[in-house]
Amino acid sequence: MKLILYCSAVLVLLITPRFCHGGNILVFPAEGSHWINMDILLQGLHSRGHSLTVLRSTKSWYIKEHASHYKSFTVPVERSINEEFISKTVAEVLQFERGALPLTSFLNSAVGLIGVFFEAHSAVCELVSAVLDDATLTKTLNESKFDLVLSDPCWGGGVILAKYFNLPLVYNVRWLTPKEAHFAIAPSPLSYIPVTGSGNTDRMTFLQRVKNMILYFVTYTQNDVIARQIYQPTCAKYLGSDHDFNQIKTDADIWLMRTDFAFDYPRPTMPNVVYIGGFQCKPAKPLPEHLEEFVQSSGEHGVIIMSLGAFINELPDDMANEIAAAFAKLPQKVIWRYKGKRPSTLGNNTLVVDWMPQNDLLGHPKIKLFVAHGGTNGVQEAIYHGVPVVGLPLFFDQFDNLLRLQERGAAKILSITTVDKDDNFLKAIQEVLTEPSYRENMQRLSRLHRDQPVKPMDKALFWIEFVMRHKGAAHLKAQSYNMSWFSYHSVDEELIYSTKTEKI
Amino acid sequence: MKLILYCSAVLVLLITPRFCHGGNILVFPAEGSHWINMDILLQGLHSRGHSLTVLRSTKSWYIKEHASHYKSFTVPVERSINEEFISKTVAEVLQFERGALPLTSFLNSAVGLIGVFFEAHSAVCELVSAVLDDATLTKTLNESKFDLVLSDPCWGGGVILAKYFNLPLVYNVRWLTPKEAHFAIAPSPLSYIPVTGSGNTDRMTFLQRVKNMILYFVTYTQNDVIARQIYQPTCAKYLGSDHDFNQIKTDADIWLMRTDFAFDYPRPTMPNVVYIGGFQCKPAKPLPEHLEEFVQSSGEHGVIIMSLGAFINELPDDMANEIAAAFAKLPQKVIWRYKGKRPSTLGNNTLVVDWMPQNDLLGHPKIKLFVAHGGTNGVQEAIYHGVPVVGLPLFFDQFDNLLRLQERGAAKILSITTVDKDDNFLKAIQEVLTEPSYRENMQRLSRLHRDQPVKPMDKALFWIEFVMRHKGAAHLKAQSYNMSWFSYHSVDEELIYSTKTEKI
Repeated sequence: MKLILYCSAVLVLLITPRFCHGGNILVFPAEGSHWINMDILLQGLHSRGHSLTVLRSTKSWYIKEHASHYKSFTVPVERSINEEFISKTVAEVLQFERGALPLTSFLNSAVGLIGVFFEAHSAVCELVSAVLDDATLTKTLNESKFDLVLSDPCWGGGVILAKYFNLPLVYNVRWLTPKEAHFAIAPSPLSYIPVTGSGNTDRMTFLQRVKNMILYFVTYTQNDVIARQIYQPTCAKYLGSDHDFNQIKTDADIWLMRTDFAFDYPRPTMPNVVYIGGFQCKPAKPLPEHLEEFVQSSGEHGVIIMSLGAFINELPDDMANEIAAAFAKLPQKVIWRYKGKRPSTLGNNTLVVDWMPQNDLLGHPKIKLFVAHGGTNGVQEAIYHGVPVVGLPLFFDQFDNLLRLQERGAAKILSITTVDKDDNFLKAIQEVLTEPSYRENMQRLSRLHRDQPVKPMDKALFWIEFVMRHKGAAHLKAQSYNMSWFSYHSVDEELIYSTKTEKI
Repeated sequence: MKLILYCSAVLVLLITPRFCHGGNILVFPAEGSHWINMDILLQGLHSRGHSLTVLRSTKSWYIKEHASHYKSFTVPVERSINEEFISKTVAEVLQFERGALPLTSFLNSAVGLIGVFFEAHSAVCELVSAVLDDATLTKTLNESKFDLVLSDPCWGGGVILAKYFNLPLVYNVRWLTPKEAHFAIAPSPLSYIPVTGSGNTDRMTFLQRVKNMILYFVTYTQNDVIARQIYQPTCAKYLGSDHDFNQIKTDADIWLMRTDFAFDYPRPTMPNVVYIGGFQCKPAKPLPEHLEEFVQSSGEHGVIIMSLGAFINELPDDMANEIAAAFAKLPQKVIWRYKGKRPSTLGNNTLVVDWMPQNDLLGHPKIKLFVAHGGTNGVQEAIYHGVPVVGLPLFFDQFDNLLRLQERGAAKILSITTVDKDDNFLKAIQEVLTEPSYRENMQRLSRLHRDQPVKPMDKALFWIEFVMRHKGAAHLKAQSYNMSWFSYHSVDEELIYSTKTEKI
């Protein structure tokens, strides 16, 4: 027996990825829900003995200045995206959606949110400038001898800092400016790869493909305008005018991609893309006593939980009232995360909370249904725990995230602008609760997601440490990133090498 | 302490991929060096408790009828590729190479070997027909309730059998008919993805890209002719005329690809491709006593080993004599696997053997250099053990395999037709022995190859068992495999769905 245990211990040492203590990581995160899962990754890195330094601004909203697992530098800036700005934008988008014709609606998330994008990315550039104009801070960062920069490239500042300090770069990524990150890194035939916002699946009719292409060019242009108008001046100022932001942003060593193929459609990928979708998910912890009591009081009917994510604190009164009224008609208990005015139609079965332990609730056996807005984090937690979804998407990727569940028979999507019509919301909830295939399909996705040789979080930690051990991952970066578009498509006379062509 | 050991044991259970005992696998392998590593995979599967049934013919050459780790069915056939046939072909190719102009030489491996391809694939179809025409055998196979078919698709029979018996399919693959398998499964921009046989790297000049394209179309046509002329009639006869061989051969659930990116250039890939390059490599075992003595007698100079692989038993006399004479001038000891006539110039320092424990020798600290033909197995063993290479490529992928090492500074390639000129061979060996960068570069590749979260063999076993657990891996198969070329390239009016479109 002792021998077996000894062998097991040796095996653990062999299997466990090599320790890489004392790594030193500079983190340039994004705000909001993106920070929530970056912070989970930072906790993982801290538990493996790495030092973490987070760059934040005086206007940072989610990113706290003090934490036990990282130290931070706070840089003064004027511009910011804050809660108030987001609430105003949400109200505008909802207003637009209500009046929109079906044909124009799909452009809403691409065009309607351009103001948010411009404001957010300008704030990022201000933050980058504030860091690099501060000679003392720059000196301190230089002397810190970082091993790599870890960044969420939906904010394009991380790559500029990595190039400035000449450090390897790892992305914790789902978006790259307004494009789904795969479009910047892997060949993406538009015939079966739906552009986010298109509402398409991987099986499209001819007309759907036309829509896909139009939206691709809209997103491409938007992306290009943001890169040239906002980032390029900052990039040129600090790195030199020979640096093209559009080119350098694809130059990360490893892309920790926050998706996987239990969730997303299979598609071409690249060797330096590591799929960590659902890395933030974990088994449920016991609920706080008052919540456990409430959940248990639901008896055989079970519980529905509802949350519209980090950005949505309140809805127009009529919508909120309609939702509350529908809940009141159900035999289930309901836990609803909602910060707005208390709806007048709220039933006794519904508990409205400011915050809820979403992961622990989703993992509770009494939870029957998740009413969700379709943010990536929530959708992946629902998959992990196998809980079917009624989706109320608002913008960004939310409809498309939910579509991936709906198409596999694991969710039902409802336009939030029609919840107040014909008992739509009530009917959708009843259908997902009573038709067993929704839960069965979601549980199949859960089994597929969980059946991986290495857990997503362990993969993320392994590859960050790999980049530290080998000072990059040049051998996984295809030559395509060094090529101009005319060389890539073989329409030039001679291949133009990048000045920074790397050899492994 | 006991607690730690207990925790370790629990951790091992959690980390080790779930056991999947009692799986039942039908194996349709290929002959020659392809069988060598298929057999290693079968041993791995057997050690995890799976039953294996191998289909072979009465003319099988490498695939033995009796083995402790599998049972086999031997089917009578007329046609075969045997040792004699191969020797004759090798002599012809060498003759051709000697007289070839540089411009025509690169087409040699594509065009010169067409006869071998036709003969081999016709033999495969005969074997498939012999299996499916045998009602008793077909009944036995049907009643065996296999979980999946495991096949090396360089012989296209496995996919026909998998479709016939309606079973999931796993490929252990590097080639698909005469094409490198990636070309059939993943987008492959010819601007930076060299066609095998082109002698190109991933950085090409305009002229090299022209050559790449020409060779792509030559290989494509060859592939298409073999599919239509040889496989399609067999496919239509047993599966029905609505089955297109070119389409069904891309329909495997998992592609265990025998390469990785320490060896090959980074390129687009697909979610159902699992990189198991070097899965056959393992730490060296002690050498047999007489070999260890010989190796130790080399003193500080160390040992060179040479092998030209499974197919090459002898060389023209003048070439063999020149090689032996060069070896005789070296202070190193030499072990040469060679079955031909004993060269007259052989020195005292050279031991000629019929067979050698190549992996154990490569892992021996006294081995300084590997003279190799550039077969994938040997090249990957050299990478695993970090031994630099002098390459003497003959045909197929050998030059291109060696080029990947040469370009990273870990090998020097010599045309076998010029070994007898100007002490070329001796000079190449002396350069690789005395210039430390060759060994340093090879050892860097070795470190990159070995630094993976899951060992290649464990990955292979995990994904085969995954397919058994989930009865396929439909969620990893992109829609592109179900699309016609005109839909894929969006030049049609309507997407034509495959009749077998799968949903996850």
